[in-house]
Amino acid sequence: MTLKEVRDIARGKMKGVCNICRECNGVWCRGMVPGMGGAGDGSTMQRNYDKLREIRIMMKTLHNAKNPEMKYEFLGKILESPMIVAPITGLNYNAGGGVSEEEYIDDIVNGSIESGTIAMIGDGGNPDFYRWGLEALKEVGGNGIAIIKPRENHEIIKRIKMAEEVGALAVGIDIDGAGLITMAQMGQPVGPKTLEELKELVASTKLPFILKGILSVEEAKIAMEAGVAGIVVSNHGGRVFNGTISSVEVLSEIKEVVGDKMVVIADGGVREGMDILKFLALGADSVLIGRPIIWGSVGGRREGVKLTLKTLNTQLYQGMILSGVNDLSEINKGIIFKG
Amino acid sequence: MTLKEVRDIARGKMKGVCNICRECNGVWCRGMVPGMGGAGDGSTMQRNYDKLREIRIMMKTLHNAKNPEMKYEFLGKILESPMIVAPITGLNYNAGGGVSEEEYIDDIVNGSIESGTIAMIGDGGNPDFYRWGLEALKEVGGNGIAIIKPRENHEIIKRIKMAEEVGALAVGIDIDGAGLITMAQMGQPVGPKTLEELKELVASTKLPFILKGILSVEEAKIAMEAGVAGIVVSNHGGRVFNGTISSVEVLSEIKEVVGDKMVVIADGGVREGMDILKFLALGADSVLIGRPIIWGSVGGRREGVKLTLKTLNTQLYQGMILSGVNDLSEINKGIIFKG
Amino acid sequence: MTLKEVRDIARGKMKGVCNICRECNGVWCRGMVPGMGGAGDGSTMQRNYDKLREIRIMMKTLHNAKNPEMKYEFLGKILESPMIVAPITGLNYNAGGGVSEEEYIDDIVNGSIESGTIAMIGDGGNPDFYRWGLEALKEVGGNGIAIIKPRENHEIIKRIKMAEEVGALAVGIDIDGAGLITMAQMGQPVGPKTLEELKELVASTKLPFILKGILSVEEAKIAMEAGVAGIVVSNHGGRVFNGTISSVEVLSEIKEVVGDKMVVIADGGVREGMDILKFLALGADSVLIGRPIIWGSVGGRREGVKLTLKTLNTQLYQGMILSGVNDLSEINKGIIFKG
Amino acid sequence: MTLKEVRDIARGKMKGVCNICRECNGVWCRGMVPGMGGAGDGSTMQRNYDKLREIRIMMKTLHNAKNPEMKYEFLGKILESPMIVAPITGLNYNAGGGVSEEEYIDDIVNGSIESGTIAMIGDGGNPDFYRWGLEALKEVGGNGIAIIKPRENHEIIKRIKMAEEVGALAVGIDIDGAGLITMAQMGQPVGPKTLEELKELVASTKLPFILKGILSVEEAKIAMEAGVAGIVVSNHGGRVFNGTISSVEVLSEIKEVVGDKMVVIADGGVREGMDILKFLALGADSVLIGRPIIWGSVGGRREGVKLTLKTLNTQLYQGMILSGVNDLSEINKGIIFKG
Repeated sequence: MTLKEVRDIARGKMKGVCNICRECNGVWCRGMVPGMGGAGDGSTMQRNYDKLREIRIMMKTLHNAKNPEMKYEFLGKILESPMIVAPITGLNYNAGGGVSEEEYIDDIVNGSIESGTIAMIGDGGNPDFYRWGLEALKEVGGNGIAIIKPRENHEIIKRIKMAEEVGALAVGIDIDGAGLITMAQMGQPVGPKTLEELKELVASTKLPFILKGILSVEEAKIAMEAGVAGIVVSNHGGRVFNGTISSVEVLSEIKEVVGDKMVVIADGGVREGMDILKFLALGADSVLIGRPIIWGSVGGRREGVKLTLKTLNTQLYQGMILSGVNDLSEINKGIIFKG
Repeated sequence: MTLKEVRDIARGKMKGVCNICRECNGVWCRGMVPGMGGAGDGSTMQRNYDKLREIRIMMKTLHNAKNPEMKYEFLGKILESPMIVAPITGLNYNAGGGVSEEEYIDDIVNGSIESGTIAMIGDGGNPDFYRWGLEALKEVGGNGIAIIKPRENHEIIKRIKMAEEVGALAVGIDIDGAGLITMAQMGQPVGPKTLEELKELVASTKLPFILKGILSVEEAKIAMEAGVAGIVVSNHGGRVFNGTISSVEVLSEIKEVVGDKMVVIADGGVREGMDILKFLALGADSVLIGRPIIWGSVGGRREGVKLTLKTLNTQLYQGMILSGVNDLSEINKGIIFKG
Repeated sequence: MTLKEVRDIARGKMKGVCNICRECNGVWCRGMVPGMGGAGDGSTMQRNYDKLREIRIMMKTLHNAKNPEMKYEFLGKILESPMIVAPITGLNYNAGGGVSEEEYIDDIVNGSIESGTIAMIGDGGNPDFYRWGLEALKEVGGNGIAIIKPRENHEIIKRIKMAEEVGALAVGIDIDGAGLITMAQMGQPVGPKTLEELKELVASTKLPFILKGILSVEEAKIAMEAGVAGIVVSNHGGRVFNGTISSVEVLSEIKEVVGDKMVVIADGGVREGMDILKFLALGADSVLIGRPIIWGSVGGRREGVKLTLKTLNTQLYQGMILSGVNDLSEINKGIIFKG
Repeated sequence: MTLKEVRDIARGKMKGVCNICRECNGVWCRGMVPGMGGAGDGSTMQRNYDKLREIRIMMKTLHNAKNPEMKYEFLGKILESPMIVAPITGLNYNAGGGVSEEEYIDDIVNGSIESGTIAMIGDGGNPDFYRWGLEALKEVGGNGIAIIKPRENHEIIKRIKMAEEVGALAVGIDIDGAGLITMAQMGQPVGPKTLEELKELVASTKLPFILKGILSVEEAKIAMEAGVAGIVVSNHGGRVFNGTISSVEVLSEIKEVVGDKMVVIADGGVREGMDILKFLALGADSVLIGRPIIWGSVGGRREGVKLTLKTLNTQLYQGMILSGVNDLSEINKGIIFKG
């Protein structure tokens, strides 16, 4: 099975929902929420793609980086490379039903581990989603991260305890889901968090706490003050707040302020290995992979997920050779073209 | 009935006139006047969309704005939120005939009031349009605003008196219609106004006077000097003067000069709640909604109008949460991304 | 007959050659030479459109310019407005054969005079073209301008004499045809001119001499030194030199240097009245109209040409009202938006 | 046979692989590797086109450059004009199989010589490619250049000796192939080179050594230090490293540093004569022609290649007339538009 075959199958199963465009730029699917597109007219998702595309890496071929090292240490674990599978739920109404929610969870939790990395499992309006995610994590000794919607604190803490019970590596919330008033309408209110509320969450567990959905220096500082272990610089793939900026527009400024005090993960538009190189050059320690993993799962189930991750790894490896870096520590702003 | 259903029906009824594009950017309908498009090659209407899209709002999720207040005080009335229905006439030749002029007037006057806001009724080459608008206002106790074409002053004053008789909240002219020489050809000349002429209009009534179609600081100052109650920063949806700028390009400069001495309304490209947030961040006190209301009326009559307004309200509410503002007074330039 | 009808007929007759796009931006027809498109990949023709589009006019409606004067004095004649019909030949192989060369010449020479303006007649590889043009001018008492290809000087002077004989108002060359090596292959070499050669041409006649195809300040100065009566700032509609700039990019700088010492005509992308306003605001005394005249002739013969000119006049009139200018002398840089 | 006919035939034979777009901008074929497109989402290949398009040449028509000289001295040979045929292999899997590898080699080696220039022959995963190229060179007395993949040094040196035996004019490597891990998987590892390794290659032969695939000033300096005879500023047509810059973005800076110490060839997006003029204006001594040669060979075999080169020559000649340069030495930055 080749990646092309996996994607061809996926394209068939996602017909009308996702076209798996060669330029996956948010144009074809604009406004498709539910579906695979960006919120509103899709401008935020399109901006993720456009701004990432503007970043250009200098090609270097006269050096000795012939076999670069990609290993990545994350919360004490050594991953194969600096990529982690993103938390995604609602496959049924968003991805055309080609895989069920449980199949998808199974694919990403196991596919990522078998590829030398880990997955984040997510939460949603349907409380089964989170439960199924934890069940899958349990079967792999908790080898993954549980990301909870920004519910009321006592609801989050309840779910953190559940994650502790299955031995999850870390927990967190995707705070960019704060505006999902549909969840409130289902009796499960979500919302923004104050510093105090955030501190309470961090203090409620001994697990590292990840705050996903930070998009400004100010809020990165609040996250640091609250004591989180890491942040994900992200706009939720442009799917929750049309009209905001892309993560690459603030990433490097955030990294400058944060330094090594927190892990800085980023996402938003990673489709190929070069995109990972760009995010790392801008200051991310690692990236989340979303959309390509969905294609892999829908088109080839666990094998499709693994093939996707393997391809991204190979592309990143090639990118490191062609930009002349020997390991992740050498990937920095210096490899970016200064127009 | 969902908004999607309303728009699907409208798309059918407006076939060939309006495609209700997911990116309603003036490309599909360019040049369609009569019709729904921008004048000439449509560049002004497209610019409205593009320039609004360039404005990006910072996402904020770590704060306490969990239930923002949207109430808006306008000329002594409290509206549900800072949006007002725009004056639009000529539905028959512009919108494909899916609703008649009288049906449309009925939909917007009543649909807006039932949604906690008000509508502006318009004027046109067919004198019935204005008369029907006033009749509709009369039935709701005058709860709306009458906007008159920039006819000769005595003709305007005659129509102001008619508006006073039905108890309209305010009157005004859409001065950007000054170049409609087709009206002159129908024996109803329109044209620009001097400061003196404007003063005469303002002095002719005790009702607040609204000047719609201002697009420069200079003219905002003239409007102030003439004593108008408010202006609408607008290029008439790009439908009267191809080649000019969009309202968002001058809005913030105008607001700086005008301060709180006049109400500053703005329009031009509002399609979703985030657009309202952007206009307010740039300095508008409130916005006019045009095109989405037409879709609502054609696709679902009064219910469609209400559903449209409700959706915009919800989106604005979400946007306020995700940008961390507690009420309208907190929406300012500070929430805009500074590239 | 309406302009829309004329264009619909023309679109049919020009099928495969010109689509008469609502955005006539050089994309559909790119590379179609022969045909109606830009040379090479069409980038120069597209740039004409794009750069003109970037220029934006401030809308003004609070003033007294209620009935602006459009009359234009050109070489001692009073024209209805500041537009002249461009010299175009080769209708048969460029415009799909919907009108013959002779029909086109008849349409533009007479259609322009009946509209209160004049036409330029052109020259080409087929020597009949120029001869037919002069014959048509002769029948209207020479009321027009003869533009000759940049042949060898003695060939040009021979043709200048022919123009004098029919009483042409002025003569000139389209020097931007200097690279047409197909003409050399037909035994009619063309090429660039030195200052001395240009002086010889100017000295050879008492008629005003027009130099068409200037695109830099340096060459505008050479033209002045040679004593020409006027220049046309032009890149030949992007049809002779792919990769160069558009006239609007140098027009205002040229005008500053030239002042009132020569007439400055410009062309390149005029499709509607606002485009004329833009060219004049940048410093042109008048503009040449090309493509819309072809559509008019193909779709409605002489009446189509007149309808086209009348529509452009009306649009320019509206534009002058909406930018607040009372006559041509008031159209200047001050009406352009300063981003 | 006209060039249009050649391309129409080629378009038919390349159906699904290359559309021979009028704007050959990397959009239609994005991601088609194997195939004719750019790597990844095709952004580098698209950037080659876009950045070249941004460069604009000033049009000049008042001068004496009536018959410019195009002759170009390259490594002691006089070529008809400053263009050389690029090394391309893998026609079968990249170009749709319309010509075989051997046919293509025959077409370019002989077609270029018969047009007064030379070709570079290439190397690939299939060792026959290089061997066939040398055989073709042998038949023309070695009149061409052998470009080898960046294999291990001893493998390169072995192939340099082979090139010496057929009397090649020069040898070199396309170092931008350093990331082709598919070659490593076929037991033929390639990779970047250190300065020392490069020096060893240069020292291994008396033939001039060409280093193809330089994209920064730093690496141009390393190439100089290693003593190469020339470099090709190139990103391999955007086909090996998605996310990097185009050659025109660094060419002029490289030329400033390199001066006349090395030959500076460049490529990336040459489709017509004006593109060559632009590259030379930016500092290249000559350019490589790739894609148009493929179209010529597939559509018209050797005659198609010759017709392609002849057309490019003519266009460059026209461009030199219209920019007012008498010979190659006069083509410099001064002819570029300064926005």
